[in-house]
Amino acid sequence: MTDAEIVAMLRRYKDGRLSEREAVAYLEKSSVEELGFAEVDHARERRQGFPEVIYGEGKTGEQVLAIMESLAKSSAGSVMATRMSAEKAAFVQERLPEAEYDAVSRILYIERPARRDAAHMVLILSAGTSDIPVAEEARLTAHLYGNVVKVHYDCGVAGIHRLFAHRADIEAANVIIVVAGMEGALTSVVGGLTDKPVIAVPTSVGYGAAFHGVTALLAMLSSCAAGVSVVNIDNGFGAGVLASRINHLR
Amino acid sequence: MTDAEIVAMLRRYKDGRLSEREAVAYLEKSSVEELGFAEVDHARERRQGFPEVIYGEGKTGEQVLAIMESLAKSSAGSVMATRMSAEKAAFVQERLPEAEYDAVSRILYIERPARRDAAHMVLILSAGTSDIPVAEEARLTAHLYGNVVKVHYDCGVAGIHRLFAHRADIEAANVIIVVAGMEGALTSVVGGLTDKPVIAVPTSVGYGAAFHGVTALLAMLSSCAAGVSVVNIDNGFGAGVLASRINHLR
Amino acid sequence: MTDAEIVAMLRRYKDGRLSEREAVAYLEKSSVEELGFAEVDHARERRQGFPEVIYGEGKTGEQVLAIMESLAKSSAGSVMATRMSAEKAAFVQERLPEAEYDAVSRILYIERPARRDAAHMVLILSAGTSDIPVAEEARLTAHLYGNVVKVHYDCGVAGIHRLFAHRADIEAANVIIVVAGMEGALTSVVGGLTDKPVIAVPTSVGYGAAFHGVTALLAMLSSCAAGVSVVNIDNGFGAGVLASRINHLR
Amino acid sequence: MTDAEIVAMLRRYKDGRLSEREAVAYLEKSSVEELGFAEVDHARERRQGFPEVIYGEGKTGEQVLAIMESLAKSSAGSVMATRMSAEKAAFVQERLPEAEYDAVSRILYIERPARRDAAHMVLILSAGTSDIPVAEEARLTAHLYGNVVKVHYDCGVAGIHRLFAHRADIEAANVIIVVAGMEGALTSVVGGLTDKPVIAVPTSVGYGAAFHGVTALLAMLSSCAAGVSVVNIDNGFGAGVLASRINHLR
Amino acid sequence: MTDAEIVAMLRRYKDGRLSEREAVAYLEKSSVEELGFAEVDHARERRQGFPEVIYGEGKTGEQVLAIMESLAKSSAGSVMATRMSAEKAAFVQERLPEAEYDAVSRILYIERPARRDAAHMVLILSAGTSDIPVAEEARLTAHLYGNVVKVHYDCGVAGIHRLFAHRADIEAANVIIVVAGMEGALTSVVGGLTDKPVIAVPTSVGYGAAFHGVTALLAMLSSCAAGVSVVNIDNGFGAGVLASRINHLR
Amino acid sequence: MTDAEIVAMLRRYKDGRLSEREAVAYLEKSSVEELGFAEVDHARERRQGFPEVIYGEGKTGEQVLAIMESLAKSSAGSVMATRMSAEKAAFVQERLPEAEYDAVSRILYIERPARRDAAHMVLILSAGTSDIPVAEEARLTAHLYGNVVKVHYDCGVAGIHRLFAHRADIEAANVIIVVAGMEGALTSVVGGLTDKPVIAVPTSVGYGAAFHGVTALLAMLSSCAAGVSVVNIDNGFGAGVLASRINHLR
Amino acid sequence: MTDAEIVAMLRRYKDGRLSEREAVAYLEKSSVEELGFAEVDHARERRQGFPEVIYGEGKTGEQVLAIMESLAKSSAGSVMATRMSAEKAAFVQERLPEAEYDAVSRILYIERPARRDAAHMVLILSAGTSDIPVAEEARLTAHLYGNVVKVHYDCGVAGIHRLFAHRADIEAANVIIVVAGMEGALTSVVGGLTDKPVIAVPTSVGYGAAFHGVTALLAMLSSCAAGVSVVNIDNGFGAGVLASRINHLR
Amino acid sequence: MTDAEIVAMLRRYKDGRLSEREAVAYLEKSSVEELGFAEVDHARERRQGFPEVIYGEGKTGEQVLAIMESLAKSSAGSVMATRMSAEKAAFVQERLPEAEYDAVSRILYIERPARRDAAHMVLILSAGTSDIPVAEEARLTAHLYGNVVKVHYDCGVAGIHRLFAHRADIEAANVIIVVAGMEGALTSVVGGLTDKPVIAVPTSVGYGAAFHGVTALLAMLSSCAAGVSVVNIDNGFGAGVLASRINHLR
Repeated sequence: MTDAEIVAMLRRYKDGRLSEREAVAYLEKSSVEELGFAEVDHARERRQGFPEVIYGEGKTGEQVLAIMESLAKSSAGSVMATRMSAEKAAFVQERLPEAEYDAVSRILYIERPARRDAAHMVLILSAGTSDIPVAEEARLTAHLYGNVVKVHYDCGVAGIHRLFAHRADIEAANVIIVVAGMEGALTSVVGGLTDKPVIAVPTSVGYGAAFHGVTALLAMLSSCAAGVSVVNIDNGFGAGVLASRINHLR
Repeated sequence: MTDAEIVAMLRRYKDGRLSEREAVAYLEKSSVEELGFAEVDHARERRQGFPEVIYGEGKTGEQVLAIMESLAKSSAGSVMATRMSAEKAAFVQERLPEAEYDAVSRILYIERPARRDAAHMVLILSAGTSDIPVAEEARLTAHLYGNVVKVHYDCGVAGIHRLFAHRADIEAANVIIVVAGMEGALTSVVGGLTDKPVIAVPTSVGYGAAFHGVTALLAMLSSCAAGVSVVNIDNGFGAGVLASRINHLR
Repeated sequence: MTDAEIVAMLRRYKDGRLSEREAVAYLEKSSVEELGFAEVDHARERRQGFPEVIYGEGKTGEQVLAIMESLAKSSAGSVMATRMSAEKAAFVQERLPEAEYDAVSRILYIERPARRDAAHMVLILSAGTSDIPVAEEARLTAHLYGNVVKVHYDCGVAGIHRLFAHRADIEAANVIIVVAGMEGALTSVVGGLTDKPVIAVPTSVGYGAAFHGVTALLAMLSSCAAGVSVVNIDNGFGAGVLASRINHLR
Repeated sequence: MTDAEIVAMLRRYKDGRLSEREAVAYLEKSSVEELGFAEVDHARERRQGFPEVIYGEGKTGEQVLAIMESLAKSSAGSVMATRMSAEKAAFVQERLPEAEYDAVSRILYIERPARRDAAHMVLILSAGTSDIPVAEEARLTAHLYGNVVKVHYDCGVAGIHRLFAHRADIEAANVIIVVAGMEGALTSVVGGLTDKPVIAVPTSVGYGAAFHGVTALLAMLSSCAAGVSVVNIDNGFGAGVLASRINHLR
Repeated sequence: MTDAEIVAMLRRYKDGRLSEREAVAYLEKSSVEELGFAEVDHARERRQGFPEVIYGEGKTGEQVLAIMESLAKSSAGSVMATRMSAEKAAFVQERLPEAEYDAVSRILYIERPARRDAAHMVLILSAGTSDIPVAEEARLTAHLYGNVVKVHYDCGVAGIHRLFAHRADIEAANVIIVVAGMEGALTSVVGGLTDKPVIAVPTSVGYGAAFHGVTALLAMLSSCAAGVSVVNIDNGFGAGVLASRINHLR
Repeated sequence: MTDAEIVAMLRRYKDGRLSEREAVAYLEKSSVEELGFAEVDHARERRQGFPEVIYGEGKTGEQVLAIMESLAKSSAGSVMATRMSAEKAAFVQERLPEAEYDAVSRILYIERPARRDAAHMVLILSAGTSDIPVAEEARLTAHLYGNVVKVHYDCGVAGIHRLFAHRADIEAANVIIVVAGMEGALTSVVGGLTDKPVIAVPTSVGYGAAFHGVTALLAMLSSCAAGVSVVNIDNGFGAGVLASRINHLR
Repeated sequence: MTDAEIVAMLRRYKDGRLSEREAVAYLEKSSVEELGFAEVDHARERRQGFPEVIYGEGKTGEQVLAIMESLAKSSAGSVMATRMSAEKAAFVQERLPEAEYDAVSRILYIERPARRDAAHMVLILSAGTSDIPVAEEARLTAHLYGNVVKVHYDCGVAGIHRLFAHRADIEAANVIIVVAGMEGALTSVVGGLTDKPVIAVPTSVGYGAAFHGVTALLAMLSSCAAGVSVVNIDNGFGAGVLASRINHLR
Repeated sequence: MTDAEIVAMLRRYKDGRLSEREAVAYLEKSSVEELGFAEVDHARERRQGFPEVIYGEGKTGEQVLAIMESLAKSSAGSVMATRMSAEKAAFVQERLPEAEYDAVSRILYIERPARRDAAHMVLILSAGTSDIPVAEEARLTAHLYGNVVKVHYDCGVAGIHRLFAHRADIEAANVIIVVAGMEGALTSVVGGLTDKPVIAVPTSVGYGAAFHGVTALLAMLSSCAAGVSVVNIDNGFGAGVLASRINHLR
């Protein structure tokens, strides 16, 4: 349902051609499109400022395609599917050529123009090179949601001067995303250097006692620095959405 | 070191009576007060906008008193000690009568005036009555850091109309803190109703498979709602600080 | 052993041609068919109202075939093998053409007619599209055991209006199965909306802190809603059997 | 709000003295009584067939008293508070003398008359003597909710003839609750003997590798017997409610 | 070193042609054959009654071959390598044709004659068909170590009459090995039926909350039946060795 | 039921004065004494060679007393209650003066004469002084069940000569119990020195990563030495019973 | 056995008055003093350079006293008992007045003179004030073992300038012990600043997801800085011993 | 930056041609080479005595190649990349022929001459043959960092004479690395035999309750032997670096 359709409906309601009841029913019905295997939530854009995002894992290429097409029609904003394998992405792109695929972050997306405010910058720091795919998922998400994003990768605390080299950006940022695996110590150091909100993303980088990201997750939750909060392991997408929500506050 | 002292020092530096080196050393030294058992970080207020907060657990009454006195002198902001038992609080209050103690949140504090912006409201929702101590720790923290805070307790999802009754406040809030134990499902429902950042605080309320808050923690991290991030179990303080940081962004 | 054979034996017992001892021994022996690698429990149908179900995982195609043939002969009810890969199913179907295979739920089955009571409906709700295979295992199981089953998929709590759209079915259901991964919050919301028994099935959908279904499992066990019980992760079959047992009570 | 009040309100609505909107608002408002620390859910009785039950842990005696008085006034059914220490119970009883306290199950309750159907019996089996407090919580709960309940304690599988001695009751029962700690094996044996729903309650009885009930919980979830579902560790109350819901189905 | 060589050496020692020191050094040196990657412990047969057994996992085919040849020369008893993949086994068999491979238990072995005492029987019971590979590892191990072994597979407690059908063997056995996955309840029931030692082997059979054998392991350790001990998950070999040790006591 | 009573009954059965059915019923009934809270299993002595043992934890003094009196009357063997606090033991002893209490192992017992075979010795080794209570529980249990028991405490592997000093006893033993906390390494060293069965008892001695005995438990289960099996953490009783069962085999 | 006694014995051996065998037996026997509950390892000082240290937890005051007296007589070095409660320490001190008690580290000790090499300094850094007891256990241990020790407490990474203020000491140290709870991030930062060995001690400081030191432990093990190793949670003693061993290498 | 370049820069600074500020900036900038995906830390060699080591896992062949080339140019020491698959190594070697690949330890390296001090030997002991890859990673690392390294593999405690055969080397070593999986008991025995620092490396060798190295890790952390510290599971590299740091102390 486009904005025009909504306005038309609302005017009919105001004119009395549509009862309140009918209006409510109309709105509720139109916002959920039954595809059989999925109920596409077209109301989310109105409710939450961005269209529903497709979680690609566990869905077939056909399912992603159908939902993506449905969203692309109904929504004026960018459309995204996360956690897409190269094969599944290729399947969708063949049928939906406007979709682009980013192989590092594994996001399939249709980008729509967005206003970006340079004075409100999202900064993404990653501890190591291996954390880049997760960091890129956060970056592309925040970008598609209309933010100016800056990144510095591979500045973990074992060579702390690499972090301090980016101190100006840390001070300039409005929100900071820290992406780190292993022991996730970067979070606490960054958290102590800024008075802006810090979103920590533990990654599954590491081995043995790193427990596929659990250690980084627990370490970030136990951080001695205040003002830090944590999202799920490897959840670059979640961090990007949250950073965007925060970054759009005025 | 007060602001006046800093200005005096900086002027001497500009006048050339103090070398850059001396200035840096002076600043660094003065910002860390050695108490033997603790290095009080007076620079934090400049760096992060609020004075160091004392984590009361594992510190003796004498230690809390000494740090609190040191901070009260050097800082213009409110001074807080969290996780204070009634006994330890009474010990400090006897010697520092301006300190107030809130028995529910177990915070000992000296409140200083703060400007509050009613248009930017922090909303705190708790799932049950037993979550109130943690929610109150968040509330008092956010209040002391100069925020307008509103609370609704006992609106867990097993009686979801209790939550919907507060829908107007959910829409009006600038940041939302959700405090819940057991399975922490309130987070996902609230996360789906708003486009503002949601900070989830798992509590240790529950028994058996609630594992002292671990289940709520994991559930919140795995939430199907985007825009949600999580702090440590029972960490009302951390949620309050983070909400304040976000709420002060413009 | 068919019913006719049982009746014959019992009459011989009544006539005194068979001692009680012999009768007991005969019954016990005949109800367990030794296949070498398995002792097929033909008495289960008498004891529990449905024939033994084959757990396909860890069994070879030959083993499943042998047990399935043995049950198909001795039982009047539907025969099922769960967790069957497509390859193993094809192997059995080639030799036992009356067997059908459902690729989504991975059940291989021989359906026999059953009476269904429309006034006693089993409702299955799933949180997301990725939960469908588990939900379908529950659905097909309950169907084969003679129940009227209704399903609504993809109605997770992050868009709670999608759930409320099915409120009439929630009220009409006699038993409700909730299938959800990630944080499993759907269970608590549904549990609070109904006074019927709710069976929660955690799924391994999700990543990181979802821990392959453990988080959903723990969250469902810790649910703040009463009247809810839980089966093993991804155990759609178990939920279907239990729902059927409950749904047949009068 | 009593039934009379509801009827009065509904008639005014029918007469047009109350708009639909007002009626809805009235109903919603009246069903949630704001006590400040708790929102008492008086609608639950209408919605779910029994009044809200008070979870005593983490609530003060004053809070339990206030909620209990509120429920006792508004509800026609029995009123219960679970997990009440003897001290807290005594505090409430002093001010609310009609409340009775059961020291084994730690339930504080006001019993109201209920119709019980002897043909639909709930059977509770416990593995050991130490499981009795949890089993009694289930028994008293199911009793207060209007069920005929029968119990056999200390019939664990290490002396399996003790279980078989109760085979007649197992066959007669409409729903069976199995309460067991340690390895919880009783569940699987009972599950194999009946075609009725079995609700398993793991208890924290045991030591070392019993992990305070976690082992029994996992074992019950992994039970090789179908038709079994599980509630939280030591959650006799939850089992009692669920058994009651199932037992009232026709 | 053969027995003959040992005797020769001992005589030289007695005759004084070898000092005690030399004798000790000779014995110690000869009992450890350095292969570079492994120190083959030829003394084990003297010390523990059976030659060293090769743990095949993590060893290359070449390594297994070299150790096996070394043991086959020095030992009069059967030689075994466990956890051998079919490929690795074929590699060894090509070069060591006397070695036999059992594909179910994945043991590669050279059997040597052994005296077996029919009056001392080792009984192996498995709960399900999927447990057979582990049970067979125990069976073949105990057999190679010179025991009379009897097996009954697929007699789990969900159909407890299947177990009772083997009661005579349970009474006749000298040691009992119980092999079970999922919730491992068979252990407790068997433990309560016998006064002989019971060795429980948890298997990784099951899914979800079975946690790859951990649940069965914990359940067996927490068994309410005394006289039961437990070996590692899927450790049929360990159970076979221990049963043999016990079964050879007089 | 005494042996005399059984004989009397059996004769009446042989004489035809009692039908088989009646005999069976008589035996079954008499072997389970209903105490309300417990079903005392008097048949266990016949079935398993020793009377039921009372697990004292979670039972009241009254309950222990009642069961102990019941067993003392019906059984000719020693009677034991484990995990008895000093207070509970004193309560029972006051009313049952023949009961003795061992404060180290926390066993309350009535010792009856037993034949002991010096040629079959149970050896108990403990790693440290802190493991003694658990080791003593094993020792007293094995002693009461009619075994010759020898102990060596504080011979952990960090000073391995302390262990080697007891090599003669290790060789002479028929069964060995190893009691160790922390990392439990003693098990593997002893397991490699003997060809007799080794029962490992992990204890909750240690801190931090010892996880209250879990580390010792896992280490013992993963022992590189064959012929070792494990009982629950701190389960000296279980080890004593199992050692006794093994030690009585001929 | 004093050095003089050893020399005397060795001379008698050289003179032929003692056979080699006797000498070995004499040495072995004299080095283990049987106290019944403990085998005091007097040889450890010769073997490992310091006398056995008493682990006070789980030992009675009488046991500690007896071992301490035994060691004080036989050893020329300092004697220590760790993890001593104030009560147990007072009990020993009453009877052994030369023993001193340090209430922070909970060590009871008899200090003997030691040579200390100022050019080889052990540096101990702690993250917070609450980590001091563990840090002090490390400090006093290293001191008693003859090291020059320097400490800086409360220099966690959330205020990283506090750490950098001690950079000169970090460069001067020969070994560094890092004591930290919560997320233990200090380890990685220090590990990146030095080329000396770093010993990390996780502490149980923190709450919730800090899991009593487990998170710090895992984070330290997963540290992105090389050259770091870890001891058990709260194991200040172990860190002190290891630092001493390293610091005495030349 | 080569040493020559550094000297040149320092002289210009001394001559006044470069201000201190410029010198510092020059040093900091030149020490971090931005490759886009990685910030190569050339300063590490100066700061920590060895060039940055590349963690190969999670990096593409191109990334490893670029970093390796950058390090090979700037560093005079050996250059290493760990955890390299054979494919990735071949990719790099094709373009960088001086790089050698060790297939057992999976290290790709360019060896540069180093002085080795035979009087300071690093000894590596492994428990089993399957631990060799991890032990070799430690060996090659320590070798490349300029140490004399000696190894003995397959000397686990189940045949403890195999360990004692290497007692002379244990006494001669300056630092000992113990590599063991399963229950890791070798650590405690070695720790008790030496007064030198022991570095324990748990390996993921084992199955079931060995939990991929977690059991060995916990056991080593809980070791009853003092002077032992632990690195991450399978972290042969970390152990090699730490041993080298310790071994170079004078």
